[in-house]
Formats: sequence, C-alpha cells, structure tokens
Amino acid sequence: MTVHPAHTRIEVGDLGVPVTRVTLTNGETFDRYCTEGPGGDAERGLPALREPWILERGDTAGYRGRAVEPADDGGSAPRRGAVRREWQGVRREPRRAHPPGPAGTGRCTQLHYARRGLITAEMAYVAQREGCPVELVRDEVAAGRAIIPANVNHPESEPMIIGRRFLVKINANIGNSAVTSSIAEEVDKLTHAVTWGADTVMDLSTGADIHTTREWILRNSPVPIGTVPIYQALEKVGGEADRLDWEVFRDTVIEQAEQGVDYMTVHAGVLLRHVPLTAERVTGIVSRGGSIMAGWCLAHHQENFLYTHFEELCEIFAAYDVAFSLGDGLRPGSVADASDRAQLAELRTLAELTERAWAHDVQVMVEGPGHVPLHLVKENVDLQQDWCHGAPFYTLGPLATDVAPGYDHITSAIGAATIAMHGTAMLCYVTPKEHLGLPGRDDVKTGVIAYKLAAHAADVAKGHPGAREWDDALSRARFEFRWRDQFALSLDPVTAEAFHDETLPAEGAKTAHFCSMCGPKFCSMAISQDVRDRFAADGMQARSAEFLRLGGTVYLEPGDATDR
Amino acid sequence: MTVHPAHTRIEVGDLGVPVTRVTLTNGETFDRYCTEGPGGDAERGLPALREPWILERGDTAGYRGRAVEPADDGGSAPRRGAVRREWQGVRREPRRAHPPGPAGTGRCTQLHYARRGLITAEMAYVAQREGCPVELVRDEVAAGRAIIPANVNHPESEPMIIGRRFLVKINANIGNSAVTSSIAEEVDKLTHAVTWGADTVMDLSTGADIHTTREWILRNSPVPIGTVPIYQALEKVGGEADRLDWEVFRDTVIEQAEQGVDYMTVHAGVLLRHVPLTAERVTGIVSRGGSIMAGWCLAHHQENFLYTHFEELCEIFAAYDVAFSLGDGLRPGSVADASDRAQLAELRTLAELTERAWAHDVQVMVEGPGHVPLHLVKENVDLQQDWCHGAPFYTLGPLATDVAPGYDHITSAIGAATIAMHGTAMLCYVTPKEHLGLPGRDDVKTGVIAYKLAAHAADVAKGHPGAREWDDALSRARFEFRWRDQFALSLDPVTAEAFHDETLPAEGAKTAHFCSMCGPKFCSMAISQDVRDRFAADGMQARSAEFLRLGGTVYLEPGDATDR
Repeated sequence: MTVHPAHTRIEVGDLGVPVTRVTLTNGETFDRYCTEGPGGDAERGLPALREPWILERGDTAGYRGRAVEPADDGGSAPRRGAVRREWQGVRREPRRAHPPGPAGTGRCTQLHYARRGLITAEMAYVAQREGCPVELVRDEVAAGRAIIPANVNHPESEPMIIGRRFLVKINANIGNSAVTSSIAEEVDKLTHAVTWGADTVMDLSTGADIHTTREWILRNSPVPIGTVPIYQALEKVGGEADRLDWEVFRDTVIEQAEQGVDYMTVHAGVLLRHVPLTAERVTGIVSRGGSIMAGWCLAHHQENFLYTHFEELCEIFAAYDVAFSLGDGLRPGSVADASDRAQLAELRTLAELTERAWAHDVQVMVEGPGHVPLHLVKENVDLQQDWCHGAPFYTLGPLATDVAPGYDHITSAIGAATIAMHGTAMLCYVTPKEHLGLPGRDDVKTGVIAYKLAAHAADVAKGHPGAREWDDALSRARFEFRWRDQFALSLDPVTAEAFHDETLPAEGAKTAHFCSMCGPKFCSMAISQDVRDRFAADGMQARSAEFLRLGGTVYLEPGDATDR
Repeated sequence: MTVHPAHTRIEVGDLGVPVTRVTLTNGETFDRYCTEGPGGDAERGLPALREPWILERGDTAGYRGRAVEPADDGGSAPRRGAVRREWQGVRREPRRAHPPGPAGTGRCTQLHYARRGLITAEMAYVAQREGCPVELVRDEVAAGRAIIPANVNHPESEPMIIGRRFLVKINANIGNSAVTSSIAEEVDKLTHAVTWGADTVMDLSTGADIHTTREWILRNSPVPIGTVPIYQALEKVGGEADRLDWEVFRDTVIEQAEQGVDYMTVHAGVLLRHVPLTAERVTGIVSRGGSIMAGWCLAHHQENFLYTHFEELCEIFAAYDVAFSLGDGLRPGSVADASDRAQLAELRTLAELTERAWAHDVQVMVEGPGHVPLHLVKENVDLQQDWCHGAPFYTLGPLATDVAPGYDHITSAIGAATIAMHGTAMLCYVTPKEHLGLPGRDDVKTGVIAYKLAAHAADVAKGHPGAREWDDALSRARFEFRWRDQFALSLDPVTAEAFHDETLPAEGAKTAHFCSMCGPKFCSMAISQDVRDRFAADGMQARSAEFLRLGGTVYLEPGDATDR
C-alpha cells in the first residue's frame, strides 16, 4: 500500500522484489526499500510468495499438525472488548523438515543452507532488496552475523535480513492484552505498522483469542512475525507461573511453529543463580518473560526449563526454520540498573546459547536493553558482539532517560539511533504509550516513524552504501523549493504536507519560492540561490578556484583576503 | 506556574530561588530546577527581581533612550493576522554602564565582574539553582567557559548559566513572521515555553510590530531573551538586503539593548571570502542571517560590516551586558554539507571574534549546526571547544537525518542529546513544524519537552551531579506502582496521566498493582516484587552474598551453580 500519490510500487529483478518509486517533479525518480503487502483482502490473506521455493527445495513435508484446542485461545482471559472471529481464509497443512536420516537432516534453516554454500531464493530476494551481492548475504548468514527469519509455514513473508552489514531494521510490537483490544484491531495495527515501514512485527498478545489472533496476523503479514511463546503457555496454565513446565511450553512452540511464527523470544538465559543479582535493583526484573521464568525458578528451586531443554528446542526450531530471539529477561528497566551484574551474567549465558543453537544450524539474534544512559550504549553493543561472536543484536530502544513517560518513543529513539550506529542490527520500537498503556493505531505509526528515522540516522552514520542518497534527494528538493517532492520523499509525506498546509494552505504555496516560517523576504534558501547566481555572474567560481589553489588552507588571516 | 497538583513552587536560600517541589505519596519530596515566572498579569509584566542588584552595583546610570520610531515596528511588513497592541505596563528608563573614565569602565558584564573576582547576586542565584559552589560559577564565567546572559535592562529575568560544567540548557524560538501570528499569540508562546522548561527564549519575529512584540515579551519573560537584530534591521530598510549598513544595524542593536535583550545572534563570521565555499553545497546557505550577510557582501564587494565594525559592537554590548551568540551563518543545512570547508572556515573566524569580544569583557557563546550525521557530532563539539577556547557551544539540534520533516523534533533530539553529551552547553529546540511551517502553541510544548529530555539524557550521560536522581525517583515510583508519583515526576505529567487514562480511566487503576499494557497476571513488576519477597523469605540474600564472595566473577560455568 502506498501512502502518497507520487509513490508507485514497482517490482524489480527476476523475483519481483517490490520497491517504492517516488516520481519527482523534476523528472527524476527515487527508489526506496519497501514491503509490498498488505493491501489485499484481510479475510483471505496474502499470496504465498515463498511456497514454490520451499517446495522446490524438497527437504520438507506436510503433515497432520497438532490439533487446535480451545485452550489455545486462552479461555481463562477476560474477554472484555474481544470478539472471536474464526480464520476463514486459506489453511495449509503444516510443513517441517524431513527428520534426520536417509531422507533429510531435520533442518531447513537458511543458516543450514548458507553453511553448505547454497544460495536460496530468500537470499537472492534479500540481496536485491538490499542492493548488495548475494554472496554477502550468504556469507553473513553462514557466519551467524545475520539472519533471515523465514519459517516454512509463513510462505506469505517477503524475505528480509537482520545483520549489521545490512540496513538497520525495526520491529513493531502489537498484540492484545487481558484488558483491551480485538482481533480486527490487531490486524489493522499490523497493516498500519507494515505500511509505515515495520520490518518485522511481534505479536505479544496475552489476552483472549491468542491462537486465532495470531492466525489472522500471520496469514496477512508480509513481514516476519515474532512471538514470546511463554505468554501463551502461561495462559494455558491459567496464569499460574508455578504450573508451567517444559511440556506445555514445547506444545506451544510447536503450535506456533506450525502456524508460521518466524522468530520466538525465549528467556533461556534467566538462570536460577542470576535471580539474586536483581534483588538490589531499582526496578528489579522488568521483562515479562524474564520475571515469569525467575518466579518459576524460585518457586521450584530448579534451573529454568528453557535452559535445561534448550537442545530439544533447537531441534524443533531447526525443523521449521524458526529463529531464536534470545530474550534478555534481566535487561535493565531503569538507567540505574544498566550494565549491572544481572544483565551481564545473562548475556554470558546468551552467548553460550548462541553457540549451542548454531550447532543445530538454528538462526539466532540476541535481545538487548531497555534503559541505558548514553555513555554506556557503545559498551553494550561491543560486549554483545564480542561475547556472542557477532550474532545480530536486537535492542528495545534503549531509553536514554527514565523521566519522560509519554515521550518514550523519543527518549528511546535517541538510544536506538546511537546503539544502531555502533552495530545493533534491529531496533524494537517504543511507542508514546510505553509504560502507560497499550498502543493504539496512531501510536503504532508514531513509534514506527520514530524508529525508521533512528534506523536511517544510524545507516547514514555507518556510511551504509547509498543511505545518504535519500537525505540528499530530499535536501535538494528542499533547496530548490520543490515542495511536492520534499513531501513525497519524506518518511511520512502525509504529516509533512499537513503541517505545511496548516500554515500555508493555498495550493500556490506548494510551488512558492519561500516558505511559511520566514515569508518571501527572509527566505535563506531564496537568498542563497541569489548568491549562487551572482556568484556565477561575477566569475567568482574562477576566483574561488584561484583562492583554493593559492591558499590550500581554509583559513587566511584577514589581511590576506583577496576580496577586501 | 505549576503543571500538576503535586507540584508546589517553593523558594530557597537568601535570594528566594524558585524550586518545583514534587510531593510524593510515600511522604518523600523531590525538588526540581525551575523558572518561577510567568504567572502574573501579562498586561503589567513581571516584577524586576534584579533591579536592586543592578542599582547597588552603582556602575550604571539611566539615560534618555533612543526615541522609538514608527519604523521600529517594521511598517513595510504585511500585517495579515497581526493586531498592534501598545505596551501599557511599566516603562523604565534604559540604563547602561558609566562610560570609560573616572566614573566607570563602560562595562557592566558578568564577565567583567568575574574577572575581577567579584561574586554578583546573579552568580549566587545561579549557584543556588545549580546546586554548586558559587566559586565554580564565577571561575567558569571568568574563564569564558560559561555565560550568564543578563542585560541590565531586563531586570525581570531569573539569572541562569550556560556552560558545559552546568546543567544543559535549552532555548525555544518564538516570533511572528510576515505571514502569520499576533502579539498575544507570541506572549502566550513565551509563557507556554517557559512553563514547560525553556531556559531561554529567542524572539525571531520578522513580521509586523517587531518592536512592540519584543517589548511585551521582555516585560513578561523570566528567562533571558535572545534576538537576531539583522532581521529587524532588514525590515527598517524595506527588506532590501543591499541597503543594510552599519548605521541601521547599530541603531537596531541599541534599540534592542535598551529594551533589555540579553543575547544577540550576530553573523560576523560570514566573510566575503567564505561565500564562494558554499557554492557547491547541496543546500547552500540556510541561515537567514547568514544568507542576508552573504548577499550583502557579494552585492557590495565589501567585507561583512558586522566583522569590520566588531569592536564598536563589543563596546555597545559591554555597556548593557548583552552577550554575543556568534551566529553560524554558514552552518550546514543538510547532512551532505556537514563539517565542510565553509562551516569550518566560519568557525575559525568565530574563534577569532570570541577572543576579541573577551578583550572587551563581553560574554560569548558560539552557535553550531544544524544538520550533522551522528558520526560527525563529537568532532563538531571538539573543534569548537578547542578553537574557541571553551566558549559555550549553542547548537540548533543538530538533525541526524534530513528525511523526516514533520518529525524533526525527534531527528534533532537524537543529535542534540549526543552533542550535549560531548559538551554542548545549550540546545536550540526544533519543533515538529521545522522546515514546514511556523510552530503553534502545541508545537512549542512538543519541542520544549523533546529538548528537555535530550538535555537531561546528556546530563545523565555526563554524570552531572544529581542528574540521575530524577530518573531513579521516577523509576522507584514505577516499580512500586505509585502511579500518581510516576505522573508527578514526569517531564510532562499532563500527557503521562492522559495516556494512562486512555487505556484505564478508572480511578482505581491509578493505585492498581498492574498496568494497562499487560493486565494483572502478566505484570513483570508485580512478579518481580514477588521474586524479591520470596528472595527475602528464602534467605537467598545470604546465599547471593556467598555466591559473590566465592565467585567474584559474574559468570560461572553451569556446573558451578550452587542452586541446581
């Protein structure tokens, strides 16, 4: 779905990779990375782009999946505001890799292929989107420094890559809670988030209709979908963390893997011995999953079952190509707790788990904070990249200060741009509602835009190939008073144009050689253009060259100026 | 004016320095830096707090000021939307330093006093506000590393300090344009900006009633007021930059100094020889003042009259204690132009002018960009601090990317927090309307809050004494489910509470031990509190101490864990 009349969706390359083409009034065009869907009929879902690629590989087979049970929809949750709507669109038989043996390896992951030197259609698609050699994609995936989340049961997704050598990506969280929101609202938030540029979406539902909501989301999502399966597992045991166990968790993971979830947050790094390290914190444990597992560990006086069953989890993930998002259950929830013992102890465990997952050819990214004062941001990336051997870092913000609830999309965009500049591969957005309420539709957009600009600022700072071209195209439009082009090239053309029109609504003002801030006489751009014109007329171009030839240095003593 | 029922304004110390005291529900209080006014009757203006201090020094005298002329209100500007309202409140005779000779030195600047080892009431007031020794204030001012903008004709102002050793400050720009807005609107924007935390305000009016608008603003402003006098000077010559000259500029500076303007942006660093350096830029010259002076230089083929008459300007500034804000007329207007020859050539000239102003005991800050990609931000501060001998840096943002018009309060808050962390003393805000329109009342607030949080994030990152206490107080309230305290401690309590109430409006939800994002069962804070309780019950505190005593390192091999 395009958001501006000057935007058209074109498809490039053999694989028909979508690109947003911005047509400018000066005859030029500017192409931007985009995600094609959604845009169809939400009742039917998206076409299965990747299905032929998956079938052609011949290393997976359909099977009669786990039977969906009423408890999958979390019947114990209050249903206030929720309306159950069965999914009526396409239903595919779930697939998984042939089991290890003569017919297969039990693995169908992009990491598995990359390590064997194969170039998959997914990798080719990603290379076209990123404008890079496909070998770079394959090599980064093979090294574990990038992931392509691509569950074989989510064939609707347009492959994308998460890794520090590629464009910085952003994730938008959606999902209902026990307190509020319906399936239709969540599907609408998904569509809205993707339209405005979310690269992945996490469905963090904890309320009613969890299974069904996720089905609607997956069948309509052109981006990888992430989840935190412990939330649903907890619903299945009536919300009593003590009753959780490996079996109910395993069942939930298989349920979600069969639906097509592309990556799952697993808090396997919250070890029993780490929990005491949080006792003196200002804000204790703020990760929901982390606190659930910490509570479980203490209640049972046993090690975290996600940790003790990690090998089995890897086998499941390998069979569907579900990627790990190794959860930072002990992330700091305030700047006071940043980079403390608990956080770093868990990170050491996540590093260990990264290697263990890699041994199964399972793709991994590692989650990071949270709340981090700016002077500790670089250290957070450096430690994670060092300890976890370059596995992609996926951070929640971080917020650079705790004092601005209501504006945490901004406090965290500051931290996010900084941490991405230093090598974080994906940024989980924070909306203005963080700490206060559940984000609505407008909050989703605000969060996405704040994070798109943070990610792009990081791409520019990293010198990512081509990143600055976008800034330059927009700035040239600005300087040349191509107002319409400035709007069309904006991250959010709708808001840019609306703000302009608030002050100067007249149609003529969109082609005027001045703007509403200064009026015609004080317009620096207009004066600057005059300067440029005079400059040419005076032959000062030549004089400038002479000046530079003679001086070489930028600064001359006043007496040396040839023009006085 | 306070913004929340839990806020009261108290006065501390001999000088009655205002502080916002936040009363918490747990019986504690938290005091925050604040500005007292406004709050009175805008028709009458504020009390003259500093008048007795100024009189007591005995080094200034009142005199019959320059007669106000009709042209001072810029009669040539279109008056659309503007309503002329004469200032009817108090009118004081302007004061200035006794001229050099037996009776005086021609100087009444805080720098002059500081260099002679004097501690003024202004310095004592500032030290109380900042919670630092008054000697630090005096020494930093004496060294030129900090300024206290305090025109003797603006006795209404509450002294504040701008320097890297002190809290990072923010400036809000207001002012009408030829296209829009009235005097009442501008006074309202001033009040709104100060209420939400602006430390200084610049009146950048370029439209009708310039003189009268400024009079209203000054008489109602408890914060220092800055201007760019070339805007008014240009109005006086009918908007034709070629007709500008030293005489009309000088007359304008005296007019504004007599009114009480505390600091003035002067684009004396735009030298004729610098202009050609901008010709190949993506966005040329984007500073209004810079482009006016560049146009003048080229039209006359003469050196910038602000540069050639700089000594006379210093004498005027010294007589009123007007501080220089040395304008960066050649600042980059796009990330493409950042740190280019033109910018750095001008900065060299600003360094020279800094020393020349200091020779007259005139206070100086130096303006900076603008648009700077994140990887060049630190270099910008370092060069300025090095070349300008530590004179305070005052930057506009900078924007970290050009692609998000409509969200430039965010693109620039990212750059602002970063540049302040590295030593910038004051941040000029950017509103969501930047590049698109004139900010309205709501935009002013949004810009102020975005910059307050950026400034505070920088204070925290710098380890500024006491800065993190605010974060910790709010985070403790959050962890302990003291919702009302979380709101009261917020930078914007009104928005924080409104966002909370959107999801959970019930009064009981403000004392509930869960929040609207997760509902009662999934609340990590609640679970975490449980963990803490169990933890105490289990005697694990002791075990943790044992663990730390034995291990010393954060990480133990899994087999070593005592709890398995």
